Amino acid sequence: MVNTPPSSSTVSRTVLLLLRVLIFVFLLIALILIAIVKQTDDETGAEIKFNDIYAYRYMISTIIIGFAYNLLQMAFSMFTVVSGNRVLSGDGGYLFDFFGDKIISYLLISGSAAGFGVTVELGRGVPSNSFIEKANASASLLLIGFLLTAIASTFTSFALPKKAN
Amino acid sequence: MVNTPPSSSTVSRTVLLLLRVLIFVFLLIALILIAIVKQTDDETGAEIKFNDIYAYRYMISTIIIGFAYNLLQMAFSMFTVVSGNRVLSGDGGYLFDFFGDKIISYLLISGSAAGFGVTVELGRGVPSNSFIEKANASASLLLIGFLLTAIASTFTSFALPKKAN
Repeated sequence: MVNTPPSSSTVSRTVLLLLRVLIFVFLLIALILIAIVKQTDDETGAEIKFNDIYAYRYMISTIIIGFAYNLLQMAFSMFTVVSGNRVLSGDGGYLFDFFGDKIISYLLISGSAAGFGVTVELGRGVPSNSFIEKANASASLLLIGFLLTAIASTFTSFALPKKAN
Repeated sequence: MVNTPPSSSTVSRTVLLLLRVLIFVFLLIALILIAIVKQTDDETGAEIKFNDIYAYRYMISTIIIGFAYNLLQMAFSMFTVVSGNRVLSGDGGYLFDFFGDKIISYLLISGSAAGFGVTVELGRGVPSNSFIEKANASASLLLIGFLLTAIASTFTSFALPKKAN
């Protein structure tokens, strides 16, 4: 792969764009699911929503940051595909991709882990209900979003040698 | 830095070894703190320990895996410093470092996030007590362990160009 830079970099650029579109979709569904979780207490009538649980608020923050980052990267990628030039020229682009993917992947897994940790505790000894199911589905989608970002991050790490040249 | 491989690689190897010793110490204290958390319910007399909460069990698993990985890496580093040769010769060593640090850093931050998520929920509306304090301290140390691993991971990513040569 390293011996034929032009074609391999076009391939990896296309794979990266595809990954980012997928991540975008997964994060969007995760955001919708966690935003609509709602549970009414049968005894007190009090309503529990995502913003009553700190871990879910953190989860939403990480989803929104990941969302914004992928939107920006998709815009950059499309610009590159259309014009043939990178938005950030020289080493800057590779470093932005490398650190961006690295930091965002850490954010996404931390959001997913916090969400799962709390949801598992909330769901213990309680019959399965739509609140727990939606929260689990959202954390799962966020986990898939993280896995895809980790793959993208591996790609952009292996692209670092190009920077050194 | 890239222009003088021998001296820069010695420096980064020493920095990496130092980082791994620090991570080892932080993870050890985190492990002790989370293993000794204990709380007795005033009304029922029931005792709550780390293994009653799934997120804390996961946290301990991530700490132990991170601990074992750092022990192995420290042994490898010491062998390299003493003998001047890498244990894994060729590309294998760089790839092992790269994927090892990457995967372990993801594990550590997920353990820390799960621990924090649950501890924050458990501690809400309750006066501060030693259970919450110890659990928070353990998750904080795990977070520092993660940050140091993320720095090590950045080092081992930037070492990838050496592999390509």
